[in-house]
Amino acid sequence: MFTKDSFYEVKERINPYIHETKLIQSKTLNQLTGNQLFIKPECLQKTGSFKIRGAASKVTALRQQGKEVKGLVTASSGNHGQAVAYMAKIFNIKAMIVIPNNAPLAKIKAIKAYGAEIVTVGPKSSERLAKAQEISQEMGYLYIPPYDDYDVIRGQGTIGLELVKENLAIDKVFVPIGGGGLISGISSCIKAFNPGIKVIGVEPKQSCCMNTSLKKGERTEITPNTIADGLRTVMPGELTFPLVQEYVDDLVLVEEEEIKEAMALVMERMKLIIEPSGAVSVAAMLKEEEKGKNLVAVVSGGNLDIMSISEILK
Amino acid sequence: MFTKDSFYEVKERINPYIHETKLIQSKTLNQLTGNQLFIKPECLQKTGSFKIRGAASKVTALRQQGKEVKGLVTASSGNHGQAVAYMAKIFNIKAMIVIPNNAPLAKIKAIKAYGAEIVTVGPKSSERLAKAQEISQEMGYLYIPPYDDYDVIRGQGTIGLELVKENLAIDKVFVPIGGGGLISGISSCIKAFNPGIKVIGVEPKQSCCMNTSLKKGERTEITPNTIADGLRTVMPGELTFPLVQEYVDDLVLVEEEEIKEAMALVMERMKLIIEPSGAVSVAAMLKEEEKGKNLVAVVSGGNLDIMSISEILK
Repeated sequence: MFTKDSFYEVKERINPYIHETKLIQSKTLNQLTGNQLFIKPECLQKTGSFKIRGAASKVTALRQQGKEVKGLVTASSGNHGQAVAYMAKIFNIKAMIVIPNNAPLAKIKAIKAYGAEIVTVGPKSSERLAKAQEISQEMGYLYIPPYDDYDVIRGQGTIGLELVKENLAIDKVFVPIGGGGLISGISSCIKAFNPGIKVIGVEPKQSCCMNTSLKKGERTEITPNTIADGLRTVMPGELTFPLVQEYVDDLVLVEEEEIKEAMALVMERMKLIIEPSGAVSVAAMLKEEEKGKNLVAVVSGGNLDIMSISEILK
Repeated sequence: MFTKDSFYEVKERINPYIHETKLIQSKTLNQLTGNQLFIKPECLQKTGSFKIRGAASKVTALRQQGKEVKGLVTASSGNHGQAVAYMAKIFNIKAMIVIPNNAPLAKIKAIKAYGAEIVTVGPKSSERLAKAQEISQEMGYLYIPPYDDYDVIRGQGTIGLELVKENLAIDKVFVPIGGGGLISGISSCIKAFNPGIKVIGVEPKQSCCMNTSLKKGERTEITPNTIADGLRTVMPGELTFPLVQEYVDDLVLVEEEEIKEAMALVMERMKLIIEPSGAVSVAAMLKEEEKGKNLVAVVSGGNLDIMSISEILK
């Protein structure tokens, strides 16, 4: 549905605002698993997560269309909020970020550091959405959706573009699923360039709205309960769900213990700070049953309270 | 005292066993300080610290001389032990590692994972040294000194070689000091190539045997008391002390709180796991008073119990 050219166009548009993250390997992990494992470290991305790609795509698309943007508002459990706050700072406009009252302190601190205003509501994503839309109407700020938007989706898809441009025969790419924006973008981009690369979605078993919805054949609400705070989504997006149905090859569910083990392994062996939501793809990659393959795990982010690491891994 | 060629020779000899670590920058840290800050991330080095360079240099030098090496033994608070264990594994010989009873669990686990045998003694470096030499005599294993050895020093000096080969007008390089092996190697290498680059040694204020010794003009014993477990050295080395006197431009002392802040900053903003001993150079770089300079902090390692991060930073 998206053309190859549309990803090149977005990539060029957002290039001034993002890092092109370089794949990282660990011999130890290769030996452990019998596969060649690569990590796409979006934890090393600007603002500490992939979300800057989508936010940059949306804001630059609107400015390209000549729209006057006097402020930005969004609802976000944190990483998307940081990305929107960062983009507002870059373009010297105001930002209001609606976050749940259980968001990690590191994410709140970072949003404030970018100069955005924070509005706190309850833990449900529906509460955040309602508040953000209310602010958007009252203040005339532009609402930037966290995932259910084609500009945002194409922005996240630039990760797929960077992967297909690697000089590497990739067999499978593992991608965390929250609302589905990241995997919609990556899978539609990868399939446009190279349908032979398998795209595998990964959800915590205790928060798998996409898996539940795919099985039912329709978007279904769940009650998320996972340490992966960025993946506590109640229901897949309206736009992302059909893209996942069309382009994603398979889904893998991971246990909370597997998420913790993957986090600890990456931190101990690769010296990289990753957040639980970013570790789910590594967890799935580590239990891949096929051998001798080139596997990539997209590590979506690295924003977490470092003081809470031992608490999370307990 | 060492020629340029001698560093090239060592670098070529150890290249198969090490990573050439790439400098890392953080815009946030640059903005915070008004300098261009670079981190030489030896935490991403094989075995998680720079120590592999010296160990590889020593072992390969002996093999080049045609010496039969039936086993390796060393005394180490951890990182050097890991490096020796790793080299023994590479060459398929035995290793015995003498460590203090307060060494971090992550380091002990890693040494065991490389298949070496661990011998535990008290916390003083003199106890470890005596035990290692005893084993060396009884078993006929080759003793690999942690720092007081010209092959080891030249091995660590390859970091200096990589730095002078960077296309970058470096003003100052900050280097942690324990026994002085790392800074002896780096400073003698850098001064051989480019005497204009200033080499600054960094010690915890609560464990500054080099600073104390330099002031007295002779090697002096101290009682170390710092969270930087790799820098708890009682006295500078016999070989390293005169090299530091000759080649190091200045010394900076850092408080325990400054070490913790530097660790937290690198983990939060750069998503890199570094150990307290590796953070002292960053702490010194962060409080540099000159502005508009290109500064490099050698982050010596990243081996620590991730479960103890919040305890260390408290």
